[in-house]
Amino acid sequence: MTASPELRADLRAEALARWAEASASPDELARGRTDRSGDLGTAEPLAVVRARDVPQVQDVLAWADARGVPVVPRGAGSGLAGGAVANGALVLDVAGLDRIVSIDPVDEVAVVEPGVVTADLDAAAAEHGLLYAPDPASAGFSTIGGNIATNAGGMRCVKYGVTRDAVLGLDVVLADGRLVRTGRATLKGVVGYDLTGLFVGSEGTLGVVVGATLRLRPRPVGQATALATYVDVEAAARACAALGAARLRPSLLELLDRATLEAVDAFTGSDLGGDAGAVVIAQTDGPEADDEIARIEKVLADDAVSVEHTSDPDRTDALLAARRLALPAIEARATALIEDICVPRSRLAEAVRGVERIAAETGVRIYSFAHAGDGNLHPIVTWEKGVAVRPPEVDAAAARVFALALELGGTLSGEHGVGTLKRAFLGDELGADVLGLHHGIKAALDPRGTLNPGKAI
Amino acid sequence: MTASPELRADLRAEALARWAEASASPDELARGRTDRSGDLGTAEPLAVVRARDVPQVQDVLAWADARGVPVVPRGAGSGLAGGAVANGALVLDVAGLDRIVSIDPVDEVAVVEPGVVTADLDAAAAEHGLLYAPDPASAGFSTIGGNIATNAGGMRCVKYGVTRDAVLGLDVVLADGRLVRTGRATLKGVVGYDLTGLFVGSEGTLGVVVGATLRLRPRPVGQATALATYVDVEAAARACAALGAARLRPSLLELLDRATLEAVDAFTGSDLGGDAGAVVIAQTDGPEADDEIARIEKVLADDAVSVEHTSDPDRTDALLAARRLALPAIEARATALIEDICVPRSRLAEAVRGVERIAAETGVRIYSFAHAGDGNLHPIVTWEKGVAVRPPEVDAAAARVFALALELGGTLSGEHGVGTLKRAFLGDELGADVLGLHHGIKAALDPRGTLNPGKAI
Repeated sequence: MTASPELRADLRAEALARWAEASASPDELARGRTDRSGDLGTAEPLAVVRARDVPQVQDVLAWADARGVPVVPRGAGSGLAGGAVANGALVLDVAGLDRIVSIDPVDEVAVVEPGVVTADLDAAAAEHGLLYAPDPASAGFSTIGGNIATNAGGMRCVKYGVTRDAVLGLDVVLADGRLVRTGRATLKGVVGYDLTGLFVGSEGTLGVVVGATLRLRPRPVGQATALATYVDVEAAARACAALGAARLRPSLLELLDRATLEAVDAFTGSDLGGDAGAVVIAQTDGPEADDEIARIEKVLADDAVSVEHTSDPDRTDALLAARRLALPAIEARATALIEDICVPRSRLAEAVRGVERIAAETGVRIYSFAHAGDGNLHPIVTWEKGVAVRPPEVDAAAARVFALALELGGTLSGEHGVGTLKRAFLGDELGADVLGLHHGIKAALDPRGTLNPGKAI
Repeated sequence: MTASPELRADLRAEALARWAEASASPDELARGRTDRSGDLGTAEPLAVVRARDVPQVQDVLAWADARGVPVVPRGAGSGLAGGAVANGALVLDVAGLDRIVSIDPVDEVAVVEPGVVTADLDAAAAEHGLLYAPDPASAGFSTIGGNIATNAGGMRCVKYGVTRDAVLGLDVVLADGRLVRTGRATLKGVVGYDLTGLFVGSEGTLGVVVGATLRLRPRPVGQATALATYVDVEAAARACAALGAARLRPSLLELLDRATLEAVDAFTGSDLGGDAGAVVIAQTDGPEADDEIARIEKVLADDAVSVEHTSDPDRTDALLAARRLALPAIEARATALIEDICVPRSRLAEAVRGVERIAAETGVRIYSFAHAGDGNLHPIVTWEKGVAVRPPEVDAAAARVFALALELGGTLSGEHGVGTLKRAFLGDELGADVLGLHHGIKAALDPRGTLNPGKAI
């Protein structure tokens, strides 16, 4: 927002007077300024409004749109790409709209407000033998609204799909404050354009989600887990490709590289990195889980240093620990830029090798782990702990990672979004014509450019 | 197209001179005028161009857009809602672009041209142990391009999703002739708005699909089928709901009402309607198919007149015959308007009962069968065979069916689209604000309104 200090002060005073839920306390402004990307953006928020209800969301947007005040919608602030960075805007926090309105166990549909924590919805669904499938690593604290904004994925989306696949319909407040409903409560429907899909993943640039009708699934019973170690990441990636070629469909398929294993060993005292250059973890579910894991283990065993499988819950936790602790282990020793490229899964080995080359050539330490079944690789580009400002060589390494993804026929982001961090690279992936279509759609839905300017597109 | 006869003649002459693939022969004009909806629209096509290649598609659109000539894209002409009705426009037939460009068995991705027949792609995928999941009843003659235009469903989408779920990326020629690529070749990706989803189901109003990157799936091995009969359609619908409540997930779940069974009996000499007021057919697939069908049979048996299951291929064909022959059997005795409402599946019984009431009250004969697992009901609204013009009471009955769908929280179309036939009812479902968003998006992508005017939105 480029308004003068005087105008900003007037607008802030007007906002604080208008809504009891508005605040400009130092704590609120600091909290609303950034998200988990750590990007501080250009300026603190004009103010933060913790919305009380949908009419208030409408009022905030109508007020802001009429005055040319940019608005940044916000949930838990757990985004990794900077989508909720304030850049001086009015921050509209909808995390307080957190009711699970209904779960229909026959239709397998949930109606929720945007502030519901993802894992809470899944737990409520579980009481009916149902599953809310998308499970980003942040599921314990991220909200459905934020998951919708970024089209969040997770580990089990390799079998059950991403957030978009779970969203049947949305209640959205448009930039000018009108409330609209997109999609439907039915499992199929082809009337009109897929506006629901358009809002999913639009990172708050087209409207503010204030309600969602979500598809649940039968919760699988039974689970089995296998872990295999390999001399290097290429052997591990080949094993993942072989699973695909054998038409096996695990419900989770994760790969960890040597650097990540070393970080986990240092963090937990384990010895995964001892004789292993890479680890693959696979999981199956459903009544056939044990038979399937046996078939998977057989494929993984080819070329493996070691392989085991289990359906014992405690041993399962032990096998999954390396994956679950990968990021905390890395963040215990370094400051991390969490990247998120996705490539055709046949090219995963090339992607990991390319990332290793970039690390070697730039001297930047990069840890890699991947949702291997989707070809979705998280290169964790790191620098010295305690150094707040990201060093230029880290940005340079990240830029090379993005170029690598495109070179391999992939994308800059599999599940985190573009936000502020990847926006400079957007044209490289989309091209000028497609980017032009984005701006045409943005102008049609948000003609004054009120919603989350400078993000995503 | 409201041009004068002289201008039309000039434009036709120009088109015929410009492209060797353009024709205005009586046969071509008659063929290009309508689709399987039978709607003859306002006028014969200006001309029909059977496109040779993508540059020609671009040239046709650039030429037409510059001259204000409307263009109706066309595949096999198998659409049921009138989406390909010419209404005097230039018809751009892309059915000749029919190459399967590649099938990648490791990435489980196919790249195809729009004229590929759906069942041909599935057969090619089968050679690699893969499945192209969407299977509209027209799969043997409809094309991928048309399936994408309408977001086609089918019987197995209850387990494997609709066309939208299978489309990763598209090559699209825009109204002004520019060729753009949307989406990606990776299984996940969140960069930019979901333009791919926006084009899917847009019925040729936003662009002409000239290429598609499609997701394949492991082809299930094993199959088992059950058929249960009930005294009435409500008992049958209750049985379908009970399957859902038991968290069973068949790969096909179809319901046929008494009128349909009688038509099939008259057509084939079978005796399904003898003691049955309704039939439910369920199928399972995968290594667990036999165990699953046994569990399903147990649930279906509650309240059933009879139930059986089989994994014998010949007996499977016999059990499926009633569903496969339902439409041919009805069309053998009447002229049919094929409707396509979808309701929350818990309300399927109310929907079928409501349709029966509409039939009784209007005196119009309506046959109903349903993809019961999705709540997608096909009321076949009929009139006397040989009468070409649809009687007003048929339209009145169809209008009441649409109102019923909305009253039950459903939609006008589960999988066929809006086309011309349902356009008058669009506002009832979407409301003025959402319809306004559609027109904003249409204007952003096709500012001169060249593509398929008067359809879908």
